[in-house]
Amino acid sequence: MTGAVVGLLREALSERVDTDPSHLDDARADKSEHAAPGRPIAIVHAACIDDVQATMRIATATGTPVVVRGAGTGLAGGANAGAGEIVLSMRAMDRILEVRPDDLLAVVEPGILNAELNRALADHGLWWAPDPVSREISTVGGNIATGAGGLLCAKYGVVRDAVLGVDLVLADGRLLHLGHRSVKGVTGLDLTALVIGSEGTLGVVVGATLKLRRLVPGQARTLTASFPSVRAAATAAAAVTASGVQPAIMELMDAACLRAVHRMLDLPDPGEAAQLTIQTDGPAASVEAESIAATLTDAGGAVRLARDDAESQLLWRIRRSMHPAMETLGTTLIEDVSVPRSALPAMFDEIARIEREYDLVIPTVCHAGDGNLHPNFVFDAGADAAVPEVIWQAADELFRAALRLGGTLTGEHGVGVLKRRWLADELGDDQWELQRQITRVFDPQGILNPGKVFTP
Amino acid sequence: MTGAVVGLLREALSERVDTDPSHLDDARADKSEHAAPGRPIAIVHAACIDDVQATMRIATATGTPVVVRGAGTGLAGGANAGAGEIVLSMRAMDRILEVRPDDLLAVVEPGILNAELNRALADHGLWWAPDPVSREISTVGGNIATGAGGLLCAKYGVVRDAVLGVDLVLADGRLLHLGHRSVKGVTGLDLTALVIGSEGTLGVVVGATLKLRRLVPGQARTLTASFPSVRAAATAAAAVTASGVQPAIMELMDAACLRAVHRMLDLPDPGEAAQLTIQTDGPAASVEAESIAATLTDAGGAVRLARDDAESQLLWRIRRSMHPAMETLGTTLIEDVSVPRSALPAMFDEIARIEREYDLVIPTVCHAGDGNLHPNFVFDAGADAAVPEVIWQAADELFRAALRLGGTLTGEHGVGVLKRRWLADELGDDQWELQRQITRVFDPQGILNPGKVFTP
Repeated sequence: MTGAVVGLLREALSERVDTDPSHLDDARADKSEHAAPGRPIAIVHAACIDDVQATMRIATATGTPVVVRGAGTGLAGGANAGAGEIVLSMRAMDRILEVRPDDLLAVVEPGILNAELNRALADHGLWWAPDPVSREISTVGGNIATGAGGLLCAKYGVVRDAVLGVDLVLADGRLLHLGHRSVKGVTGLDLTALVIGSEGTLGVVVGATLKLRRLVPGQARTLTASFPSVRAAATAAAAVTASGVQPAIMELMDAACLRAVHRMLDLPDPGEAAQLTIQTDGPAASVEAESIAATLTDAGGAVRLARDDAESQLLWRIRRSMHPAMETLGTTLIEDVSVPRSALPAMFDEIARIEREYDLVIPTVCHAGDGNLHPNFVFDAGADAAVPEVIWQAADELFRAALRLGGTLTGEHGVGVLKRRWLADELGDDQWELQRQITRVFDPQGILNPGKVFTP
Repeated sequence: MTGAVVGLLREALSERVDTDPSHLDDARADKSEHAAPGRPIAIVHAACIDDVQATMRIATATGTPVVVRGAGTGLAGGANAGAGEIVLSMRAMDRILEVRPDDLLAVVEPGILNAELNRALADHGLWWAPDPVSREISTVGGNIATGAGGLLCAKYGVVRDAVLGVDLVLADGRLLHLGHRSVKGVTGLDLTALVIGSEGTLGVVVGATLKLRRLVPGQARTLTASFPSVRAAATAAAAVTASGVQPAIMELMDAACLRAVHRMLDLPDPGEAAQLTIQTDGPAASVEAESIAATLTDAGGAVRLARDDAESQLLWRIRRSMHPAMETLGTTLIEDVSVPRSALPAMFDEIARIEREYDLVIPTVCHAGDGNLHPNFVFDAGADAAVPEVIWQAADELFRAALRLGGTLTGEHGVGVLKRRWLADELGDDQWELQRQITRVFDPQGILNPGKVFTP
């Protein structure tokens, strides 16, 4: 059967079909290091919408599952492909089809990298605001599939706020044009919003009409503030939000993070200090930075305001070294809970409790401006790179604590395979079942990314 | 059967059930003046979620259609109830349950008026940005049901951008909690966004978690600019958008509008002039107003910049008198197409063509900052207040022109009954059918607002 499907794909798509064993193995995993069991049967490197439609028609005719994949930088296993599955790679569809400064929109193919798009838009004085940390290596299509966030979200929004429409190929190969090109539009149901964050379960995004912003004028300002404890830092971050001044970025690193980064960069040991790193931008950047500095000083922070761009880069280097520093500690499971901003101090208390109860260190970095935390569960992986059950037990406590505080399982990484067993805890059984039925309207056979998100 | 249903409602909801004939007649129509044929069987004035659930259980058990209604200010007939239908009025559920300045959110019941909510939020230094012209008389629930817009949308967004979650009672009476309280959240499909603009076809919104903004500091500035033609005014509006300065409000009135208003207010006849009225706000309001004044002068406009708040009020009085002035001309069908901003001049050309070809006057007001036009088709209504077929033929030309220019049938009023026959023209047959199937997942019996939006 597998041979027959590959034969049909080759007949229709010839050299776009790739069965190189090492490429197939690469498609089993993403940046979470989780790998699907078994090896997919083929990768289709789609070059155009016709290729996608042809692939989906064959998949539907043969009942073969399809995993849509961008650059493979996910953190929840959502685009990992396993035994018996076709990988539909969108990476080669990476053209910018249209940029309209007058209408503040761009039409792009999904495979373009976020940063590549933004470099091209900068020539027009424009940008697309979603800025996941992965932006240099992740695709716009992947950002849409996960409903990605990033550092700038409290001020500039998430992907949901920045997409006007998508072109979607359904499981059976039909092409739909969802959404609109105008600022306003309420004709029928908002299927564009439904596709954002649907993690490959509703269809294949083959094009997107993006809502753009003009580049922010003026020189951004950066400041850091050190606090004796993570709770003090989280309380100070909440005080900044409550003060009414809106930073562009406000990042929090706890003591374990900061120590690991300082060690890696050969900087002095920061002890138990936690740190906020904040950026203001726009015409009022300096005034806002001074105001935030005063709020943080009042909250007990030791503040350092960068005098120029060079010093600013130095301060951001600490935050940017977070992920490499984690890799020096062992294998990590990066989590992604999000809570209302006022609940940040309580959420850090819960993380401290889980660390004590499970005898773990959970270095945590947090987008403090929007309440999105990334606790890193560090462990020694066995030969199979699997996450030990004790880590999942601790993660289970983390998820339940976030839900109790009015938060959510995942702020920006998605459910994928790694969080599917907690999905019904957040949605409730009725909503879980309703959502699954909606996926069946788009994909009656259940061939789009089966086993992801909604699998019980 | 009707008597039996009313009996069941009375048994469960006693004095919340209203069968006063004049109230029933009121529920047949909205501000579009379109009225449903026949009289609904009862109005349930829900006071709490239990009342809504009880009503929906009876409706499901008896297969009785339900029309959810707020303040009845719609412009597309979406909440008009007719023969055999239960009206479920949410107007009495009007409490503010929670305001959280620290998390920039509020939890409200759906029946609260938009302006009433905003007066209460102002005490906390906050506001909810959606500002339909109807805000003094329309409910937050109605704003959510239609996906309302308003004047401030280009700068401050539409309803879709300002709702974090909704509580939804399904057709069978089950209660779902959709969305989240955190800035970020991507757990499962975004059903909150799907409910926004669904016009009562998916469920009953019984509560909403709203995303708030802080009140904008500083004194707003107002200016007007007169142009010799509407095309010149539309071109100037596009030049403002292209200049990169973002006005809070930018309204355009064509010559027919301006003449009607001037006549009503006893002001001098403006001849063929069209007018832009613009507001800037925030700390840079004055600088931005000066910059926009320069752009408009370059574009051939005669600019008047209000020196103070009193003069500003005077200038806005012209725009605010638009709807009363239309009522002096005859019966009007207010349309609602939206196009990409760069297509505004071309859209005005199309309106001029339709006026010539159909020998009509179509006074048009336009939210020029976002490309949303409200052409007013003026006619002499017969005894039944029905829109003459020739007006619908002209409207048909209008819709097709908007679609050709990359626009949409409805920017903010919704489809309701008045635009349902054009819905498939915009969506395409495949998407139309897919959307209808999604409504069936929420409402398998089809008892929620039947005959609206998706009826062929």
